[in-house]
This record gives sequence, C-alpha cells and structure tokens, in this order.
Amino acid sequence: MQINTIAFDADDTLWVNETFFRDAEDHFCLLFNDYIPYEECQEQLFKMEMRNLPMYGYGIKPFTLSLIEAAIEITNNKVSTKQISELIALGKEMLDAPVQLIDGIENVLSTLSRKHKLVVATKGDLLDQERKLDKSGLAKYFHHIEVMSDKQPKNYTKLVNHLDIKPQEFLMVGNSLKSDILPVLEIGGHAFHIPFHTTWIHEQVAEEIQHIHFKELAKASEIIELLK
Amino acid sequence: MQINTIAFDADDTLWVNETFFRDAEDHFCLLFNDYIPYEECQEQLFKMEMRNLPMYGYGIKPFTLSLIEAAIEITNNKVSTKQISELIALGKEMLDAPVQLIDGIENVLSTLSRKHKLVVATKGDLLDQERKLDKSGLAKYFHHIEVMSDKQPKNYTKLVNHLDIKPQEFLMVGNSLKSDILPVLEIGGHAFHIPFHTTWIHEQVAEEIQHIHFKELAKASEIIELLK
Repeated sequence: MQINTIAFDADDTLWVNETFFRDAEDHFCLLFNDYIPYEECQEQLFKMEMRNLPMYGYGIKPFTLSLIEAAIEITNNKVSTKQISELIALGKEMLDAPVQLIDGIENVLSTLSRKHKLVVATKGDLLDQERKLDKSGLAKYFHHIEVMSDKQPKNYTKLVNHLDIKPQEFLMVGNSLKSDILPVLEIGGHAFHIPFHTTWIHEQVAEEIQHIHFKELAKASEIIELLK
Repeated sequence: MQINTIAFDADDTLWVNETFFRDAEDHFCLLFNDYIPYEECQEQLFKMEMRNLPMYGYGIKPFTLSLIEAAIEITNNKVSTKQISELIALGKEMLDAPVQLIDGIENVLSTLSRKHKLVVATKGDLLDQERKLDKSGLAKYFHHIEVMSDKQPKNYTKLVNHLDIKPQEFLMVGNSLKSDILPVLEIGGHAFHIPFHTTWIHEQVAEEIQHIHFKELAKASEIIELLK
C-alpha cells in the first residue's frame, strides 16, 4: 500500500457533528409535541429534509429551512412566529457551536502529516466547514480543504485528479460507509471506516463490506500502525 | 502582460444574478407594504442581511433565512405562516431559476479557452454555483470552479498558489470592484472590470481605480483584443 494522500472526512471524523443535529431534532420534536407524537415528528422532519436535499444540499442552513417548513406542515399553519424565531435561533446556535474534537485525532494528524499529504474532504457548507476547521486548530496539518457538493464516485475522481495522484495512492478516512467508503473503493482508492456512535439515517448502509482496499477501525490511531 | 490563467466571476459576469435578488426583494417589500413603507423595508432587509452575513455567508439560502427573520421583525410577529411559506417558495424559485447567460459570453470563453486556462472564481453556495455552471452549458470551457467563502486578498492568494502561478500571470474578470478587482490588484494580479447594470449595495465601492494592472471594459469581448 503506497499511500500519497490521506483525505479525512470532517463531520464525525475530525469533530463531533451528528450529535448537534440529533439534539436540534430532539428540541424540535419536543416543541411540537402537542401536534404530533415524537417518533412521527422525527419521520416527518426526515422526509422534509430528503425532499429538500436536491434543492438545498447539506448543512445547517438547509436544515434550518427544513425545520421551518416542517413546523408549518406539522402544525397545519398554527406554528407561532415565536416558535419560528426559536427555530432560526436554533440554527444559529448550531452554526456558532464550539468545535469538539474527536478523541486523540490531533495526535494522529500530527504523526501522519510528517510522511503524508493530508487533506480534508467534506460535504456541506463551505463557510461553515472553513469556520470549523479554523476553530478546531487542526488547519495546520492539512494541505487543503476540499468541500464537495456531494460524495459520489465522480466527486472523488475529480479530487484525485486534482491531487495529481492515482486512485490507489489515495486513502479516505471517514465515518460514513455511504459517503466516505463505497464511492472511494469504487474508483480504486483505499478507505478506512471509523464508525461514530450516531449515524444519520440518510448515511446508513445495510451491506457488509469485503474489499482488499477496505479496513474497519475502532479509532483513528490505528491508521498510524497500518501505514507503517 | 503574460497571462496564464483567467478567472471569471460567475454571478453577473457569466450569468444574470443580482436581478433575481432585486426581484425577490421587491416581492418581499410589496408583501409587507401594509406594515412598512417600501424604501424602509429595503433598508431593514439589507440590515438583516448584513447582520447575518458573518454567520450565514452569501447565497440564496442565507437570503431566504434573512427574509423570514426580517418578516417577523417588520410585522412585529404578525407575519402569517402563509406569508412565511411564500418566502420559502420564493427562495426555492430562485434556486430553481433558469440560467440567463450574459450576452456574448459563450463566444468569449470559447475563444479565450484556446490559449488560456480558464477558471470560475465565485463566492456563494457550492451546490448552487455548481448547478448553475451545469445548467449554463459553460462548464466545458473551464478547468475548474473555485467556490470561495469570501473574496479577500488571502482567498485570491490561496487560489493563485493553488494554480501554481505567479500573481502577475493571473487575470480576474468580474463585475464587482470590491470582490473581483481590488483584492486581486492588491496581491499583484491583473483585473478587468465589466460593470453589470445592478450592483448590490454591499458590493459598491466609491473610489475610482487607477492601476497599471486594471482595465474597465464595456463588454467581455474586449478581453480578446486586449490579450492579443
């Protein structure tokens, strides 16, 4: 395995993310508990997010807009402006939340950056991801940050071409089988999966992966041993 | 002038953009005309956008969120859910609007792309700008699209380093003096200004520019002559 560049997913690989979305979802469903049972609310919200995804893409601003639209739908137009203001504030709190690093990640990046080119490969909102990278204090370990509108095989091909390397010299590390692992294996790259305790339904994959370029890790520090 | 790479701003340089925002603003201020005079409404909305800019960044989704927040403020919480739904729909219409190319731009890109590397350098939303580039049919003329979270000198330095050229080999073409011209001149690049009939207040600059690396053009086709 001759790895030139290691790309790290950001959300739930470098820092905690999904937890904030689940907390916001929880807040939302409690707020409208008079109108709809909790689990049904979660389903409705997820459906709204999926309906809006092709138009809005990923990130906190699309999520905030979906919260507002779902609130109008769930309450059958009875949502108060106070509640809508609360949803807008919820979105802003998420944008402004401090960055919580994944345990031990800085040490891993510091070690790996001595022998490899490291990049961040993330989807979501450009401004938001740049801000989190700044706040994280991890920017110094990365050659650059690649914010992708989606993580399809074609997006990774573009990234690999852009890095001017062969797919087999590329290693992707991330928590989502769907976004970080499967498309990278498909284009001939290597992929290490480090599960995070919470995974958004949209990112869940049922199948089990068996591939010579694939490894499942419990924590990021295992990468150091594997690349020795 | 030895230009290696020409970067084009996208909104109001390749395709019409500001017009859609002004139309939406017009729609908004007519909708709440019972609460606030038209011009005051424009001011309030602009203030809201500026207040949210550091948090939200540029683009249609931030604009939609600001419309909703401004509506709550302007109506003193009396905005109806029907009106909020109308604002959400307005944002979606903007995201889904057909791309209107600036007159003659395709011919210019086709000619310039034979001898120069062309890139798109735009701020705003990654997904939205990629979608517009796809819809525009102009993607084939560009080496890549660079979506920047902001257009400060440091962002251009990053782009020029990334392109692996000297600033004096870089030419930026755009409609905004503030975003496309001044920061590029500051880092030693060349910049051609092609005004669009409408400029957002936030992008307006009072000063007149005198610089050996600067030219003001009436239309993009003049670039071809100037680079001969």
